[in-house]
Amino acid sequence: MSELSKIKTFAVIGGDKRQLYLADSLARDGFRVILGGFDKLLSVGAVALSDVSGALRCCDAAIFPLPCLRMDNSLNTPFSDEKRYLSEKDCDLLSQIPVCAGMADKLLRAYPFLQKGRVFDYAGREDFAVLNAVPTAEGAIQRAMEEYEGTIAHSRVLIVGFGRIGKVLARLLHALNADVTVTARKPGDLAMIRALGYKAADTAALKGVDGADIVFNTVPSLIFDRELLKNTDPDTLIIDLASLPGGVNFEAAKTLGIDAVRALSLPGRCAPKTAGEIIKTTVYHILS
Amino acid sequence: MSELSKIKTFAVIGGDKRQLYLADSLARDGFRVILGGFDKLLSVGAVALSDVSGALRCCDAAIFPLPCLRMDNSLNTPFSDEKRYLSEKDCDLLSQIPVCAGMADKLLRAYPFLQKGRVFDYAGREDFAVLNAVPTAEGAIQRAMEEYEGTIAHSRVLIVGFGRIGKVLARLLHALNADVTVTARKPGDLAMIRALGYKAADTAALKGVDGADIVFNTVPSLIFDRELLKNTDPDTLIIDLASLPGGVNFEAAKTLGIDAVRALSLPGRCAPKTAGEIIKTTVYHILS
Amino acid sequence: MSELSKIKTFAVIGGDKRQLYLADSLARDGFRVILGGFDKLLSVGAVALSDVSGALRCCDAAIFPLPCLRMDNSLNTPFSDEKRYLSEKDCDLLSQIPVCAGMADKLLRAYPFLQKGRVFDYAGREDFAVLNAVPTAEGAIQRAMEEYEGTIAHSRVLIVGFGRIGKVLARLLHALNADVTVTARKPGDLAMIRALGYKAADTAALKGVDGADIVFNTVPSLIFDRELLKNTDPDTLIIDLASLPGGVNFEAAKTLGIDAVRALSLPGRCAPKTAGEIIKTTVYHILS
Amino acid sequence: MSELSKIKTFAVIGGDKRQLYLADSLARDGFRVILGGFDKLLSVGAVALSDVSGALRCCDAAIFPLPCLRMDNSLNTPFSDEKRYLSEKDCDLLSQIPVCAGMADKLLRAYPFLQKGRVFDYAGREDFAVLNAVPTAEGAIQRAMEEYEGTIAHSRVLIVGFGRIGKVLARLLHALNADVTVTARKPGDLAMIRALGYKAADTAALKGVDGADIVFNTVPSLIFDRELLKNTDPDTLIIDLASLPGGVNFEAAKTLGIDAVRALSLPGRCAPKTAGEIIKTTVYHILS
Repeated sequence: MSELSKIKTFAVIGGDKRQLYLADSLARDGFRVILGGFDKLLSVGAVALSDVSGALRCCDAAIFPLPCLRMDNSLNTPFSDEKRYLSEKDCDLLSQIPVCAGMADKLLRAYPFLQKGRVFDYAGREDFAVLNAVPTAEGAIQRAMEEYEGTIAHSRVLIVGFGRIGKVLARLLHALNADVTVTARKPGDLAMIRALGYKAADTAALKGVDGADIVFNTVPSLIFDRELLKNTDPDTLIIDLASLPGGVNFEAAKTLGIDAVRALSLPGRCAPKTAGEIIKTTVYHILS
Repeated sequence: MSELSKIKTFAVIGGDKRQLYLADSLARDGFRVILGGFDKLLSVGAVALSDVSGALRCCDAAIFPLPCLRMDNSLNTPFSDEKRYLSEKDCDLLSQIPVCAGMADKLLRAYPFLQKGRVFDYAGREDFAVLNAVPTAEGAIQRAMEEYEGTIAHSRVLIVGFGRIGKVLARLLHALNADVTVTARKPGDLAMIRALGYKAADTAALKGVDGADIVFNTVPSLIFDRELLKNTDPDTLIIDLASLPGGVNFEAAKTLGIDAVRALSLPGRCAPKTAGEIIKTTVYHILS
Repeated sequence: MSELSKIKTFAVIGGDKRQLYLADSLARDGFRVILGGFDKLLSVGAVALSDVSGALRCCDAAIFPLPCLRMDNSLNTPFSDEKRYLSEKDCDLLSQIPVCAGMADKLLRAYPFLQKGRVFDYAGREDFAVLNAVPTAEGAIQRAMEEYEGTIAHSRVLIVGFGRIGKVLARLLHALNADVTVTARKPGDLAMIRALGYKAADTAALKGVDGADIVFNTVPSLIFDRELLKNTDPDTLIIDLASLPGGVNFEAAKTLGIDAVRALSLPGRCAPKTAGEIIKTTVYHILS
Repeated sequence: MSELSKIKTFAVIGGDKRQLYLADSLARDGFRVILGGFDKLLSVGAVALSDVSGALRCCDAAIFPLPCLRMDNSLNTPFSDEKRYLSEKDCDLLSQIPVCAGMADKLLRAYPFLQKGRVFDYAGREDFAVLNAVPTAEGAIQRAMEEYEGTIAHSRVLIVGFGRIGKVLARLLHALNADVTVTARKPGDLAMIRALGYKAADTAALKGVDGADIVFNTVPSLIFDRELLKNTDPDTLIIDLASLPGGVNFEAAKTLGIDAVRALSLPGRCAPKTAGEIIKTTVYHILS
């Protein structure tokens, strides 16, 4: 019998809108849900509101946000003014139930007592990352629509990198009738890029960018250094999706008059409903 | 020999960013271009800047914006602080060259002398309207991405109307993996909607909206009146693309707690570059 | 109350596999169905088999195939060796129930007594024609796959005509990553072709075909006459979808060494199941 | 300086239509090409015809077909009636130039002297396999169109396996408006299947097939054994793309009345032109 089938009540502790949508979606699936750490809210539809202690006292499983903690190890609760740490009592309760958290290793380092229990990191899983490629790609396209003064249709886009996000982004931009080129390093990836109907280029051979209206960088290393930017048409819009420190020398871009923007945490910002549902799906997988 | 082949210099008079991109695009095609009515600008790349009189004096054809005039018959020149009317001298010059204007009937009513010349309305042409369906549909999707908290992928969208914009919008949303339903009235249209892979519904039978995350109205009549809105799930986001007075009773929507937004003039707002190029293409067709 | 709701038993009289799938699909929807004119068959799943008289005697509505009659006014019954005409008794029964037939005018001319009853032509309806555009387009693609020695992906295809079939065909070929050009005559159609992401060309200006691997003709008039074929690259494969007499001078094509094939009646040949379901859908619309 | 830039003349030795298209495509790129082992042909466009010895004597590089040899180590020359083995003289010539062959290990085992030279296997390369996924997927769709009596549009298809071919096949069938489910084993693949807009199912959990019109098996192991076939709706069409011994117990399928077909060597059979160009592309990569 799966762990999930034994759960009646979820505590959803802290976080932003994603956690609210997660709570709502769990409730629609028939679970009892209690929110903790949302003191600024007076009511949330059919979902029960409590404080953190109250929520933890009556739940069978707890879900913490991504990230679960702030730098100072307090709970990440943007919907509360209070700074809240986990108490000994909290940890005792949490050690007896399944706990799902984004970046769970932080939680375990900050509250080692929890190592006695079962703490799962949903954010580190491959399926979580893949599912988030869709809201990330859509967020990137939204950003491009806002910044670029032409249509995506007939625009010439260059996607640097053919990982999870590059794959989904290429598909969506191609579907919107953009002229899509994708770079990769492996011959097999380059062949697959062509097999899927895009143009292919070697990431390693990228010495300049000419003839692209929009560039999406998905590679988490400094691809667009001063040298490459110098050989980039200043009319190009660069959207950097790489996690910090990012893939673009923004200072150099500014000096050279190239419009470059950073687009981070897109699922939470652009599609918190879908991002919350993805947390739910991943938690279900973990508990099954 | 076509009219176009005799033109060396275009005057581009007034208007917003679309006219600037139009001027730029004409220049890239090898024409000489003089901008008039952009006093706030100091330089525009390789394109010459002058005042209205100067521009009209040395051109072989003139292009006015959409709309060409303000309510008070002054030129529509948002990039200028001056209020400028056409002088007798202007009209005399204009009556000797081809003149392309958006809503040219206004121009002819305000300056009847121009009826002696050749004034063409590019905005009233079928091909102009069709080409603008792409930036309009993309602008509508951008708006939906900004307003809706889920992804377009897997969202359930209802498009009311299967005209030019409905056709392009359905295609793009379907390509983004939305679950697309389109309404129409004619049996042939309903069959074509199904033939293209969408779900079909009868516009006339629309008594309520349930199970849609986003509704795009493209029909220019009051479809979403108080009665229909009463039978619409309040979680639905309605984006009204119908030209004024629009297709939604916004007051009733507000009262009922339904999120409804107006999205007008999308090509000019969201994709002025493409919108300018579409003016160019249409002008070329007119002069060929 | 609609006519359809009063029907318990359908007679399905003659025709090819389409009618068998029609009968099967009606039975799955809960109707009683009796087949007549299929003497060569011993059993057809759960559907009852009878002779024409037997079927007509106990039905509330009758469906004849497309076309309903042969040249000599006998019933079109390819699954029977017998030549069968409608008797006076048959006509008497048919005059009292709704009768749906493909090319019903033939039926009425051959058996004028039926003018007393209610005879509907499903094949002449716009929605029938539109729904059949999908099996027609797929059949055309199948034919192209069989004849052309490259992949559809990356092939350069030219579609002549932007009617129902041209629209669906362009969409499917584009989706398969072909490089698609469509010809039309009206400026509005040419603009819509571009708006949907294809290349556009003027049908009237078609003086030769160079640089296309496959041509699909959908226009029902002699487009590819000797003159045009002379200016067509002999490596081009031409698939003519135009109903007889067709849009290609096949004799001239042969002389010039151009591979040209006729592809007619594709829904019935390539997708009888879907074609039968389309008859059902159209009959339902007629009787509602 | 790359090897390729030093080559003036290619010998293309044996094989089927793919090799002829390969020769033609090389010639269009400006190479001199000599065909050997095509005795049944009298002329091949602009390409020179010789015998094997003649071709090898004057070339700078040689390309053998896929597979390069027959079981008895004779050259695979379907366009010749003669049984031809490589002579000592041939081997001597071949050992001095780059040789590209499909399944080159066979060649080296049969003619060990060639180990002195440079023999490359193009068919074993990842990029060759990926590029062939497109003609394979199109061939599979052609086969499905021929065998299945409905349209691909609205059909329910199940693709077993999300490797190279599964990926391309899913994309094309989805583009043709089929209702696509793909099975995989890894959670990351299952998530990517959903991210790309298809339905996902676990290959390992496949205990029966109900509600699919067409199944494409791409997994090279006996997935459809008697047990699974027993739990498969007999109306299902199964197309097995797995290389021999294949993924379907065809005998059991026959007994159970399930329509199952083997579809092998699709690039060469359905799209020899594209297959030949893929050999060329891969040879270019090898020699660069």
